[in-house]
Amino acid sequence: MTAFKEVGNILYEGPTSTNPLAFKYYNPNEMVNGERMEDILRYSVAYWHTFTAGGEDPFGAAVMQRPWLHLQGLDLAKARVEAAFELFEKLDVPYFCFHDIDIAPAGASLKESNQNLDIISAMIKDYLKTSKTQLLWNTANLFTHPRYVHGAATSNSADTFAYAAAQVKKGLEIGKELGSENYVFWGGREGYESLLNTDMKLEQDNLARLLHMAVDYAKEINYTGQFLIEPKPKEPTKHQYDFDVATGLSFLQTYGLKDHFKFNVEANHATLAGHTFEHELRTARIHGMLGSVDANQGDPLLGWDTDEFPTDMYASTLAMYEILKNGGLGSGGLNFDAKVRRTSFEAIDLFEAHVAGMDCFAVGLKVASKLIKDRALDDFVDDRYASFREGIGLDIVEGRSSLRQLEEHALSLTEIRHRSGKQEKLKGLINQYLLETMNSVNV
Amino acid sequence: MTAFKEVGNILYEGPTSTNPLAFKYYNPNEMVNGERMEDILRYSVAYWHTFTAGGEDPFGAAVMQRPWLHLQGLDLAKARVEAAFELFEKLDVPYFCFHDIDIAPAGASLKESNQNLDIISAMIKDYLKTSKTQLLWNTANLFTHPRYVHGAATSNSADTFAYAAAQVKKGLEIGKELGSENYVFWGGREGYESLLNTDMKLEQDNLARLLHMAVDYAKEINYTGQFLIEPKPKEPTKHQYDFDVATGLSFLQTYGLKDHFKFNVEANHATLAGHTFEHELRTARIHGMLGSVDANQGDPLLGWDTDEFPTDMYASTLAMYEILKNGGLGSGGLNFDAKVRRTSFEAIDLFEAHVAGMDCFAVGLKVASKLIKDRALDDFVDDRYASFREGIGLDIVEGRSSLRQLEEHALSLTEIRHRSGKQEKLKGLINQYLLETMNSVNV
Amino acid sequence: MTAFKEVGNILYEGPTSTNPLAFKYYNPNEMVNGERMEDILRYSVAYWHTFTAGGEDPFGAAVMQRPWLHLQGLDLAKARVEAAFELFEKLDVPYFCFHDIDIAPAGASLKESNQNLDIISAMIKDYLKTSKTQLLWNTANLFTHPRYVHGAATSNSADTFAYAAAQVKKGLEIGKELGSENYVFWGGREGYESLLNTDMKLEQDNLARLLHMAVDYAKEINYTGQFLIEPKPKEPTKHQYDFDVATGLSFLQTYGLKDHFKFNVEANHATLAGHTFEHELRTARIHGMLGSVDANQGDPLLGWDTDEFPTDMYASTLAMYEILKNGGLGSGGLNFDAKVRRTSFEAIDLFEAHVAGMDCFAVGLKVASKLIKDRALDDFVDDRYASFREGIGLDIVEGRSSLRQLEEHALSLTEIRHRSGKQEKLKGLINQYLLETMNSVNV
Amino acid sequence: MTAFKEVGNILYEGPTSTNPLAFKYYNPNEMVNGERMEDILRYSVAYWHTFTAGGEDPFGAAVMQRPWLHLQGLDLAKARVEAAFELFEKLDVPYFCFHDIDIAPAGASLKESNQNLDIISAMIKDYLKTSKTQLLWNTANLFTHPRYVHGAATSNSADTFAYAAAQVKKGLEIGKELGSENYVFWGGREGYESLLNTDMKLEQDNLARLLHMAVDYAKEINYTGQFLIEPKPKEPTKHQYDFDVATGLSFLQTYGLKDHFKFNVEANHATLAGHTFEHELRTARIHGMLGSVDANQGDPLLGWDTDEFPTDMYASTLAMYEILKNGGLGSGGLNFDAKVRRTSFEAIDLFEAHVAGMDCFAVGLKVASKLIKDRALDDFVDDRYASFREGIGLDIVEGRSSLRQLEEHALSLTEIRHRSGKQEKLKGLINQYLLETMNSVNV
Repeated sequence: MTAFKEVGNILYEGPTSTNPLAFKYYNPNEMVNGERMEDILRYSVAYWHTFTAGGEDPFGAAVMQRPWLHLQGLDLAKARVEAAFELFEKLDVPYFCFHDIDIAPAGASLKESNQNLDIISAMIKDYLKTSKTQLLWNTANLFTHPRYVHGAATSNSADTFAYAAAQVKKGLEIGKELGSENYVFWGGREGYESLLNTDMKLEQDNLARLLHMAVDYAKEINYTGQFLIEPKPKEPTKHQYDFDVATGLSFLQTYGLKDHFKFNVEANHATLAGHTFEHELRTARIHGMLGSVDANQGDPLLGWDTDEFPTDMYASTLAMYEILKNGGLGSGGLNFDAKVRRTSFEAIDLFEAHVAGMDCFAVGLKVASKLIKDRALDDFVDDRYASFREGIGLDIVEGRSSLRQLEEHALSLTEIRHRSGKQEKLKGLINQYLLETMNSVNV
Repeated sequence: MTAFKEVGNILYEGPTSTNPLAFKYYNPNEMVNGERMEDILRYSVAYWHTFTAGGEDPFGAAVMQRPWLHLQGLDLAKARVEAAFELFEKLDVPYFCFHDIDIAPAGASLKESNQNLDIISAMIKDYLKTSKTQLLWNTANLFTHPRYVHGAATSNSADTFAYAAAQVKKGLEIGKELGSENYVFWGGREGYESLLNTDMKLEQDNLARLLHMAVDYAKEINYTGQFLIEPKPKEPTKHQYDFDVATGLSFLQTYGLKDHFKFNVEANHATLAGHTFEHELRTARIHGMLGSVDANQGDPLLGWDTDEFPTDMYASTLAMYEILKNGGLGSGGLNFDAKVRRTSFEAIDLFEAHVAGMDCFAVGLKVASKLIKDRALDDFVDDRYASFREGIGLDIVEGRSSLRQLEEHALSLTEIRHRSGKQEKLKGLINQYLLETMNSVNV
Repeated sequence: MTAFKEVGNILYEGPTSTNPLAFKYYNPNEMVNGERMEDILRYSVAYWHTFTAGGEDPFGAAVMQRPWLHLQGLDLAKARVEAAFELFEKLDVPYFCFHDIDIAPAGASLKESNQNLDIISAMIKDYLKTSKTQLLWNTANLFTHPRYVHGAATSNSADTFAYAAAQVKKGLEIGKELGSENYVFWGGREGYESLLNTDMKLEQDNLARLLHMAVDYAKEINYTGQFLIEPKPKEPTKHQYDFDVATGLSFLQTYGLKDHFKFNVEANHATLAGHTFEHELRTARIHGMLGSVDANQGDPLLGWDTDEFPTDMYASTLAMYEILKNGGLGSGGLNFDAKVRRTSFEAIDLFEAHVAGMDCFAVGLKVASKLIKDRALDDFVDDRYASFREGIGLDIVEGRSSLRQLEEHALSLTEIRHRSGKQEKLKGLINQYLLETMNSVNV
Repeated sequence: MTAFKEVGNILYEGPTSTNPLAFKYYNPNEMVNGERMEDILRYSVAYWHTFTAGGEDPFGAAVMQRPWLHLQGLDLAKARVEAAFELFEKLDVPYFCFHDIDIAPAGASLKESNQNLDIISAMIKDYLKTSKTQLLWNTANLFTHPRYVHGAATSNSADTFAYAAAQVKKGLEIGKELGSENYVFWGGREGYESLLNTDMKLEQDNLARLLHMAVDYAKEINYTGQFLIEPKPKEPTKHQYDFDVATGLSFLQTYGLKDHFKFNVEANHATLAGHTFEHELRTARIHGMLGSVDANQGDPLLGWDTDEFPTDMYASTLAMYEILKNGGLGSGGLNFDAKVRRTSFEAIDLFEAHVAGMDCFAVGLKVASKLIKDRALDDFVDDRYASFREGIGLDIVEGRSSLRQLEEHALSLTEIRHRSGKQEKLKGLINQYLLETMNSVNV
């Protein structure tokens, strides 16, 4: 089966191209700051949104038109793998990601589910031998099945905990087998619905216990992918324990897990937590914990996870700014954890949406790179904090000060001079960089 | 001057009293669980909202009708102290709290400001000798003055940092002099307006530096009050570093400050961070970090800090539930960080509002105490997590398990049985306890 | 089949009953203000949440344990009808509501769907002959099926519009056949996803056209139920045209439909629009447009329609206050448009949840009734606006004034005296009424 | 006094200019669609934010550094007028706007206030004779003074109503005297704090009465400016009656005022109401009610009116799209109801902020104009709704249809075909237009 035969390979044709299925700004081989765009951006297709999702919403049935809808079971799973690698090739994307149940149907028992996973993993492994596209990360879905109705690692049922542990074990084995560069934990049910019936401490203790077991088992089987935690504040639960990066950090510190994990930061999850995307990236970055990114966007006026394809160039610019400042994403990447709108139900929309998202982050990369190269913000910031590089400021920073010394200094002051923070000017500057960078040569 | 001469002493007259200025449910001497209500609730009046605030809002001028408005400078400050102790006595409240600039006018220099503080502190100290009402906590206002326009400990100006340090030093000295049981840090300007011009890491490092200096100086002068951090997510800044309890915890852990601090949890700040009040209290409690409480409430449909007097008995019940489970608040208390509405501008409103708030938490205390005594929630919760007290669950909890063992267990399962979480029933139960407890004798 | 054989009939046993499946506060025959509680409250069970919903959420599969899950097609539909009337009887509830597809399976064609509806309608009609429980309202589901992906009356497809019109026609016929007292329009897809591709004016014109056709057809077939519009601001769409009561009113006024419609006000939809429940009820009431109520509640910290069973007695009190001031709901009722939490998946939860909700509104009714009887708020409000019942105020109200006259008056004023709005006292008063009313005799 | 002597006149130097105080994209004389940019954009400076505001926030004192701060009373007022026209000239802006108390100090009595207004109005009138900059609109501030603590037209005090009426009368006279092209009503206190003490119907009736009196008086004195209502959902009140455009429309329709008013749509107010800016503009436009625009922006993660200078080019593009589709703003304009951030306290920031905002909307204008010229969205939309221009669709639109006819049609359908709504592609297209338009010649 050729799922997308009507879709030709998508190529870089530049901004003036009238071909809606060509990249306008993304060119994998274009050099930015001495590196290929592809190697910096490390784009990844999310298997679930792209090949599994039907477009249901709380008030609507599945609508997605997909060439594989007439199939079932392992046949369906195999058709999706074929379609996936066809799409990967056409988009020329270096990575993809999946949950276990995205790729293989659940069986009547854990044993059967694992067998199904083995069959499809073997098929994927074959593709990986020849495909450019490799596995950015994999994970276990510990939230969809009714057994996880009360949580997985934080369930009140020890049997459920055990089942979740078994899925994680298999996930690590598959990760090793397929060479995934990271393993992600998103705790969609690891939270609570109501404090009235919840033992929050036991639940968090148990969550930490599962993570420790995973760390131990990875060591045992020599799986070397980076462990990632993906914060999200709520939805589907009333409150999710990995609320945001700072909360996740406090959790990892409390349970001695900080050295084993980094964060997979998602734009829409940031918004739901009341933060900007760049805030979450910055917070992870300054703690050395920025691992990977789920590149999507939410609607700031809607209170649920809309998981839209990223098209906001302000957001992609500020995100790439943090990523470049981080020295890149290491083993992580930009995974499009994004779904086409329910009203974009045609197969071609999958391509148009990825093109829009990849172009958006390509613009972000180039603008951010130029901002950094020109020290457009850095010079301002350095100058702004100059008082901490000399005199009393340096004493403070180097730990030579005390309340007594500082009071003495304060008593001697006649005036404290401040300068404007100049946000309006800086925002205007971002606009100029956005509009002007894309015309420049040799960014 | 008698500021509130028309207001008689407020007394406990019980629910059927028609006197609007009598407590209906609060009786300081009533025993709940073997302790006097007053000793559990430890109510505190907030000096700023009650004696200093004028009722301005972003679109409106001061409106509060107060007997001291014709005075200025130290005369004004002294009149407020007199009025304060008159109100404390009439409300029969055991505690109050203040920022430095609430009690004494800022002078033309730090030296003069400190002299003003000394004058008023001495006056307050005299009152404290004979008054029942003592000082729950004090703090330094590091946010109102223009010198803090870019932050205090997180300012880009080392001079500003020094000035803030000097205010904290004086605050600790006043705390020692007046016997405050806690010292609070609320970082109203310790955050950022825009990441474009902000060095987030330096700012957070500096914030930690100030806190360490405060810990050191307290030790030096033998000030033994509990240090408290008061989380708030935003307002006045775009983002405040002490976003919520979990974020504060991660900060304290990162900088080695966890042993020296607890949290002062405010209801309205919880709401602004997207949490319930009880969530923040529970989070602090299970980490042994619940220090004190700012007892107010927000409007869930408004996006700013409304600081309303607490009248929601659901919230007060669930808050008191956490506080009782915490074994009380130790040196902390329930501080009414609440302001009368701008439209409640008469002096008498100050009394009516405190009565409403004190009655509300008295109800909360009694209902929560009965819920605990009856094990109305505890039995359900214990039963719900029973699987972790035996077999594989106990293995997990006691650290004897691994992914291997758990997979084996999972493979052996034929079915996982779950029971309903019964939120609806539990919420109905809370209603019954609310309506029925207040009629019972011997709660 | 007896779906709920283990559940005995639920009875009124009063607050001290320890039977979780008895009403504590609701007694249909208790007289409040000279009317039976049942006749004022007019409770209604929502067919969809209670008999059709599976408990899916955006990240989770169906979990609800229901006795009819092994059945399919018309057999399933019939089993649900039997179960429904069993539950109605046990709860002793006077009304229920449904969408067309709740009661009968969609067929392969419109014709077959209508035949299925005829079969099940006939079965329901038989039950109605002997059952106490009657049909409060019915409606057509114009949002779930893929044909409505772009809207129904506001679709860009005229065929879709026609199909929707056909469903409405059938809905009106069924309403007439089964004697529904109201017919509801909830426009779940009548809005937009993006303005970029939307002709908002044509869509709103078309929506009005469908409503006019419905009015005409009702007249033609002599269906006399009240037409109701149910406002909701968003979800599933980005923006729904019937955003809130005021928006709905502007729509009805613009298109000459105001005389033919009233509003079905839902608590959770009010919250999503940024309003309190009582705000929406008051707005509808003062325009003579309060028709019926969807009695549920949302979570103010979550941004989606949680449709929880109502357990907040503040909300039920203030809602019943508006309803009593409205002289009741006429042909409307209190429909529990509420779903048990996903974690409350046992059949017994359906009963416990309805009991909690019915008790909650029974308390609300009694407290509101006493507030009105005592003129606890009315006297304060009347006194507050007294200046408009004499002198210049009366001139203003009676239209005898002008800017000239008022300027003259203003020039003569030396001072404008204001009195406190006393919100804190009034909120404390509500607490007292809540706690004390339920102990009183002869409310 | 020369307030801004260090600021040279701001000139159009184009995007590559390195002068931070030059326009990069705005050129008043550049032709867009056959009209001068200045004549389409009709920029206006807001007197209050620019010349009166001190930068206070709920937790901070005034910080703005302004050359006139040493002055008082009428001297201060006069210095501000001088500074204003200096700034207008340097920015080369065609309009400004003010509230009465922005330009002249309140006196001890209404009479004295009016005399002050007369003095300053005369001074302004002199400037208007020779200045390019004219008065876009004026209004009366009916919200700051304590007399408006309970509202103005919706106050419970008839004296307050009269005072408000007198201010409106004077405002209309000043508007006539100075030739303001519009007169605005923003009802900052026209709403409620709590329904418990509010007679919503009387308050709305009274609001309508004041508006009718204003219409009558304008006729009497032959003031021909356009009346505008400025919707805002909340802040400072809990709920403001002019919640959004749709609510305002329902109000105007209810009270027979629709023919006399249009809307002044503010971006940040849209956000606070849960809408996008373009939604409010579209809603006003399709009802023929789009009068003027307050061009600012809010922070979607903050719940208060941040009134930021507009720098989001997506928002300015979509806003200009609606405005161009509206055939321009008529007598309205783009008023910068925006304040420099509190941390941008230097006088120069006033210029940098206006430049950023004016450039942002200039970009928006050019991009929107090209989108329209190319029919980039129009063709897609036209095609999308094609089914309503023939057959059954045309019957529906032309009122020739009925439920009967449509059911017949629906019964005949075998399949309904839908096409994708293509949001992702359209958003990608907007990005391309944004990046590419500014390089083009002859937009």
